[in-house]
Amino acid sequence: MTTVQTSVYEPLTEPKAVALAVRLGLFRDGTPLACREIGDGNLNLVFHIVDQETKQGVIIKQALPYAKVVGESWPLTLKRAVIESNALRTFASYVPQYVPKVYYSDESLAITVMEDLSRLQIARKGLIEGKTYPLLSQHIGEFVAKTAFYTSDFGMNQQEKKKLAQSFVNPELCKITEDLVFTDPFFDHETNNFEDELRPDVEALWRDDRLHLEAAKLKRKFLTEADVLLHGDLHTGSIFVSADETKVIDPEFAFYGPIGFDLGQFFANLLLNALSRSELERQPLFDHIDRTWDVFASVFSNLWRTESVETYAATPGLLEDVLRHAFIDAVGFAGCEVIRRTIGLAHVADLDGIEHKDERLVAKRHALRLGRRLIIERRVFTGTEDFRRLFAETEQ
Amino acid sequence: MTTVQTSVYEPLTEPKAVALAVRLGLFRDGTPLACREIGDGNLNLVFHIVDQETKQGVIIKQALPYAKVVGESWPLTLKRAVIESNALRTFASYVPQYVPKVYYSDESLAITVMEDLSRLQIARKGLIEGKTYPLLSQHIGEFVAKTAFYTSDFGMNQQEKKKLAQSFVNPELCKITEDLVFTDPFFDHETNNFEDELRPDVEALWRDDRLHLEAAKLKRKFLTEADVLLHGDLHTGSIFVSADETKVIDPEFAFYGPIGFDLGQFFANLLLNALSRSELERQPLFDHIDRTWDVFASVFSNLWRTESVETYAATPGLLEDVLRHAFIDAVGFAGCEVIRRTIGLAHVADLDGIEHKDERLVAKRHALRLGRRLIIERRVFTGTEDFRRLFAETEQ
Repeated sequence: MTTVQTSVYEPLTEPKAVALAVRLGLFRDGTPLACREIGDGNLNLVFHIVDQETKQGVIIKQALPYAKVVGESWPLTLKRAVIESNALRTFASYVPQYVPKVYYSDESLAITVMEDLSRLQIARKGLIEGKTYPLLSQHIGEFVAKTAFYTSDFGMNQQEKKKLAQSFVNPELCKITEDLVFTDPFFDHETNNFEDELRPDVEALWRDDRLHLEAAKLKRKFLTEADVLLHGDLHTGSIFVSADETKVIDPEFAFYGPIGFDLGQFFANLLLNALSRSELERQPLFDHIDRTWDVFASVFSNLWRTESVETYAATPGLLEDVLRHAFIDAVGFAGCEVIRRTIGLAHVADLDGIEHKDERLVAKRHALRLGRRLIIERRVFTGTEDFRRLFAETEQ
Repeated sequence: MTTVQTSVYEPLTEPKAVALAVRLGLFRDGTPLACREIGDGNLNLVFHIVDQETKQGVIIKQALPYAKVVGESWPLTLKRAVIESNALRTFASYVPQYVPKVYYSDESLAITVMEDLSRLQIARKGLIEGKTYPLLSQHIGEFVAKTAFYTSDFGMNQQEKKKLAQSFVNPELCKITEDLVFTDPFFDHETNNFEDELRPDVEALWRDDRLHLEAAKLKRKFLTEADVLLHGDLHTGSIFVSADETKVIDPEFAFYGPIGFDLGQFFANLLLNALSRSELERQPLFDHIDRTWDVFASVFSNLWRTESVETYAATPGLLEDVLRHAFIDAVGFAGCEVIRRTIGLAHVADLDGIEHKDERLVAKRHALRLGRRLIIERRVFTGTEDFRRLFAETEQ
């Protein structure tokens, strides 16, 4: 994983981004190029450079030295660009079909130059529009299974794994998750953000010792279990998709963590979309959850049986134990994500976009009940069909 | 934690060790010094340099670029000297009374210059001689509680903890434990070493799927749970002791691992000593186990209640959950250590020193039964009194 360091950090401008692309030989000399900055300005600059003749493009993503969310701004390490490009390269070594190709990265400029995915749509946006993406869950299940297995103590040399984990130590980005996913929403914290009408429901969560205990155990897993290289932020806004293609982007939160975390985040964001839909339109989301888990478990199990480096891999019951704990953890992590996306700092358009306030409040109260019980009752889950059951049980 | 890098590695000689001590200003100019190499030559050179007038001494420990155990030799990273000196300094910041003072370290020479502890005796040796050391368990309980708490996500800034863990990534030394403690003894592996008469008992372990499954789960904890900074090899040969002093030495296996590991290793080595004693002389060992756990739990709980940095520390039930899992894990880790010290590559003098073969075989068969049930039945343990019960139940 080479990362070049050539210069002193400064934010790129459109002309400088174009000059860089030309210097890297990504376009023929003299080609007419169009460049547009398409980032949201909160975390990164994103330059989309397109050859006007061939319509071929590239993306130059540059980290900004701060993060802005809902008006707040705080400094944020530029090292996340290195984490992101190294994670994309590591993932590409196992599942090149599911990540954008990285052409170049520069540590001091905090940039990653990569494949243009503008032919695809962000999954969250498409799901909100009611699209289904029949292959999304098969692809994500395979993405998680292969990246998890091959970066685990079962799929790679256990000493190399420790060094890889060392290179993905990611304190600042992990802190964002530790605070915003696992802590702040469960306490009366200034980062929380919810409609006044939800206050009684939210205050009930803040007083809920049983919920706190289980959320605390999940947070501790996130803090301590260096199991596999995670994407770290695998929500539907981190996935580009079409009817036949899926690309996972933005792994700047990548680190070694518990195997169930990425699955839990993904499940949660499918549930959040389901919460925004009428009952008759929810089925495809539950089907996606079923299929993600089934594909994950099947691909992971097959790799375990055919490629494991661990002596104990042949021990009866061990694979089942690993899968069982991954599943239970994923259910709990999904509960944390559902709650924080409802009342925490960073919301999702699926819920916030529900136009009528009464409907929005109904969906958000449902989300809080669902999230709470996912966390507390995760060990009772026997399979993904329990997501349907609990979703229905928490509807009123 | 400063570690100086000044020169190219070469093994020290006695004159060079003396010259270094003088150059470091550890002795007055012109003082008559005596120097003796007192290491066993298998892993390290250990120079004991003494001022002939004041009788004050220092130790210069230098890692050798290989390890020798029972005639076998393999290359071993010199970086372990840096791990050792950094671990001693980190421990000293919490419990200076329980570690030797480090005066100097040099990364390229792989040396640590430290306090002379020759006034004390290695605990294993004293225990074999029948000594009791009334304060040993109180001191070790406090050592483990404070080093564990202050290096955990509950006792230190959680982002600093990740960086500290990163600096203690220790693949080569961890591999020794992964192989020799958690794997080889449970399979027909060439590193194993046991009396022919034990073969039927050992082969029964090798065929024991239930044991394999539980040993595999413990190994996975060791591989993945980056909970606290561990000593990593806390057997009674790593502890200098007297009637009123205790010093933990040799933390070259230090790394971030599961909180119960050091406790389990220590418990196991007390049990191994008990296995070498007649029934009437065992009580002090069980008392040591009781007291180690009681002091650990009490000191850790007190720090948790008064100094925790984690929001959830006040959540009812969380401390109890952390302690419960630390205890169960410690019981299982103790079982692995008891088995590997009986039939694996590195034995203990407690058992191997039993002169009469029949008695030795009786003790070793007892050890195998005890170790197996510690691993399999660890979740049934409710307190340290269960060590007495299981010890008695596995006697015949």
